[in-house]
Amino acid sequence: MLTYELKKSPGVPLYEALYRCIRADILSGNLKPGEKLPSKRALSQNLEVSKITVEGAYGQLLAEGYIRAQEKVGYFVEDIPQSVHVPVENPSAPVDPEASAELQSGGPEHFPFSVWSKLQREVMLDYGERLLLPMPNQGIRELRCAIAEHLAGFRGMHVSPENILIGAGTDFLYNLLIQLLGRDKIYAVEDPGYGKIRKIYSAGGVRCIGAPMDHCGVRPECLENADVLHISPSHHFPTGLVTPVQRRQELLSWAEGTERYIIEDDYDSEFRFDAHPMPTMQSLDRKGRVIYMNTFSKTLAPSIRISYMVLPTALMETYREKLGFYTCTVSSFEQYTLARFLSRGYFEKHINRMRKFYKQRRNRVVSALNGCAFANLLQIREEDAGLHFLLKVDTELSDEALTALCARAGIHLRTLSSYYRGEAPEEVRHHLVINYAGLREETLEQVLKNIEKTP
Amino acid sequence: MLTYELKKSPGVPLYEALYRCIRADILSGNLKPGEKLPSKRALSQNLEVSKITVEGAYGQLLAEGYIRAQEKVGYFVEDIPQSVHVPVENPSAPVDPEASAELQSGGPEHFPFSVWSKLQREVMLDYGERLLLPMPNQGIRELRCAIAEHLAGFRGMHVSPENILIGAGTDFLYNLLIQLLGRDKIYAVEDPGYGKIRKIYSAGGVRCIGAPMDHCGVRPECLENADVLHISPSHHFPTGLVTPVQRRQELLSWAEGTERYIIEDDYDSEFRFDAHPMPTMQSLDRKGRVIYMNTFSKTLAPSIRISYMVLPTALMETYREKLGFYTCTVSSFEQYTLARFLSRGYFEKHINRMRKFYKQRRNRVVSALNGCAFANLLQIREEDAGLHFLLKVDTELSDEALTALCARAGIHLRTLSSYYRGEAPEEVRHHLVINYAGLREETLEQVLKNIEKTP
Repeated sequence: MLTYELKKSPGVPLYEALYRCIRADILSGNLKPGEKLPSKRALSQNLEVSKITVEGAYGQLLAEGYIRAQEKVGYFVEDIPQSVHVPVENPSAPVDPEASAELQSGGPEHFPFSVWSKLQREVMLDYGERLLLPMPNQGIRELRCAIAEHLAGFRGMHVSPENILIGAGTDFLYNLLIQLLGRDKIYAVEDPGYGKIRKIYSAGGVRCIGAPMDHCGVRPECLENADVLHISPSHHFPTGLVTPVQRRQELLSWAEGTERYIIEDDYDSEFRFDAHPMPTMQSLDRKGRVIYMNTFSKTLAPSIRISYMVLPTALMETYREKLGFYTCTVSSFEQYTLARFLSRGYFEKHINRMRKFYKQRRNRVVSALNGCAFANLLQIREEDAGLHFLLKVDTELSDEALTALCARAGIHLRTLSSYYRGEAPEEVRHHLVINYAGLREETLEQVLKNIEKTP
Repeated sequence: MLTYELKKSPGVPLYEALYRCIRADILSGNLKPGEKLPSKRALSQNLEVSKITVEGAYGQLLAEGYIRAQEKVGYFVEDIPQSVHVPVENPSAPVDPEASAELQSGGPEHFPFSVWSKLQREVMLDYGERLLLPMPNQGIRELRCAIAEHLAGFRGMHVSPENILIGAGTDFLYNLLIQLLGRDKIYAVEDPGYGKIRKIYSAGGVRCIGAPMDHCGVRPECLENADVLHISPSHHFPTGLVTPVQRRQELLSWAEGTERYIIEDDYDSEFRFDAHPMPTMQSLDRKGRVIYMNTFSKTLAPSIRISYMVLPTALMETYREKLGFYTCTVSSFEQYTLARFLSRGYFEKHINRMRKFYKQRRNRVVSALNGCAFANLLQIREEDAGLHFLLKVDTELSDEALTALCARAGIHLRTLSSYYRGEAPEEVRHHLVINYAGLREETLEQVLKNIEKTP
């Protein structure tokens, strides 16, 4: 039987301490692939903790792909490559929303105007003339430090402020990456996927190919010709897929020992509701192949243009040498304001409020769907993350007709199939992508009625 | 004898009214190339205006290349192509400074903190949630309108807000232009010139060639292979050269009727001290070949990242079609704040203060130079514009030795020759580029003493 001394430490819930112990045993090989874990009841009795604590730990391990559940039999250790040591200390929550006009952020009513305004005034008074001096091209140090701390606390990432580069939006950062990694490289983007990313790479003058996906994420065997892979493993758009840890390892292996890079687009991990988000690929990366990217445009407001990326050290050096002449694109006023917003805990509070707000909205949307006259024809598919889910509709209509129907009801929805580069497979038909962040349930009900009326 | 009815209109000084009348006659052909203008005294008597008024008008015409002066003989009309009608209504003053870390902006002590801060608060209160909504990708309309008005008032440009594109710094805008105009094009940049521009084009993956210059600016006959010309005709860095109107016409002819474009980098025209700045090439352009670019980073502070460009209508349409998906890179807060700063006249006041401040600084630097023990070895070359001048030193030292000497005295100056792509011609040797905006005269005196001590 597993036995651990679970120390209480401030800020770390007991279930998380347990989760970390078991994960460490899996990664070190103390728990072997295929090995059965004790039942929740047995383990809770053995460790003298509540069953809820064990459930929390197993739930997190399950969500991250370290273990699998077999119905009515129990939990089993997955086959995780041993070489990896995950340095995650306190996985918890941020991401890159702006990669998306479609992934519209929802409730601006929650933006803490008075706090932001107060911080702006403070910054003016405290920094004065220093605000007007040329700033470091990488972004001001205060903000990079605050982001590093934030990533440590919420995402379990250990990142030096020296490796962080601030920029006015991810669109801009993608373009910098093309210049950094090379225009002669082949960039692979998820297929299906968020169309704007493809557009940016194409406008940037590089060859961009589709990276086919299965139920675990991008398929490494299809990446033979690619040099750079752009993915959102924590929450794929539009399928909602969370790439399990094993596939993440396989993708890392694809990049390791080569000149290949993975751009990890962590665009909406803050909005995972019921469990901690999966640790980032950047945390798993030992060979400097992962570039982590995120933004504040989704979490704060789409009109605030502050994004950042974390470059591996060697790549950061190349950046300074080759592209260090670029002036930082974000005004120092906003950088200082955001630095204080982060370091004083306002961001954390804001995210918590938003998460709650979105969760309520999601639940209302789900209720509306469940309560409608033809609920039996609908099936919600979600992965407990982000601000959208898939709604499978049992209908004879084509996807085009379904979209047109929604549009007539005043709601612009897209189907999953429309996110495919080429023809979508049969099984993805009739899936509507529901961004509940910006969706009003009245509108949704109207759409449902319209669909109902249609033969 | 020239006879005009000079109407007094608010905001237009009499000398300017006269300047416009004479210019109109030159452009319409009423005054023929080579024709002698009346003497200042004769014209002032004829028009019943003061001699100063006539002097002001002739000075402006001279500065812009419409007339030439022949010592002790008088003023003569230059040979200006007739086809052009200049729509300049009220030429007066803005530019793009940020194209330059070297062209460092000087006195942040003059930034109107309290006004900016007040406007920020106002914007928060007045716009509220609207600040958080996704904004137009081109930039918010209020700012584009304010910029269009500003350009009309200060630069005599008639520009629609629809043709203005806001971006976080000119570095970023150059990169957008590469994507818009094409990566297969050949870009010509001034040689000598500001090195960063060349770096940006090269990093952007395009072929970048040098555009050789003579005493009037870029030589059109050397542009046979180029598709896009990037120039700063109002004040070339580092020579300070102002391209006269005739050469501007020749450059426009180079672009007209082809797929060629001219990027007009108007980076520091606000700081012209003794006369109105030359009208922009954008104002002369009838065929949609000129892209005008400017920034607020130099006039306000290098840490404020707001720049813009004015695209010809057809090009703007192509932009929307091809690149309209790019999200605007400047936060809406700052856009709204700057819009009010402009439209309420604060910017104009600020520029006037800065201009005065820089003029004083320039005069102190000039006095220090004139008063030093070897003033006879120094010669100041300037074109009455911008924040730098050339200082010719009569010395046996090489340019490298001269630079090293300054560096030892703690002042980092570059010589004109160092801005050449290849070998600089003999006659540009021994010219120091003096950016007086950021220069303290004590430091300068120290340098002068050091040079003096050197054999």
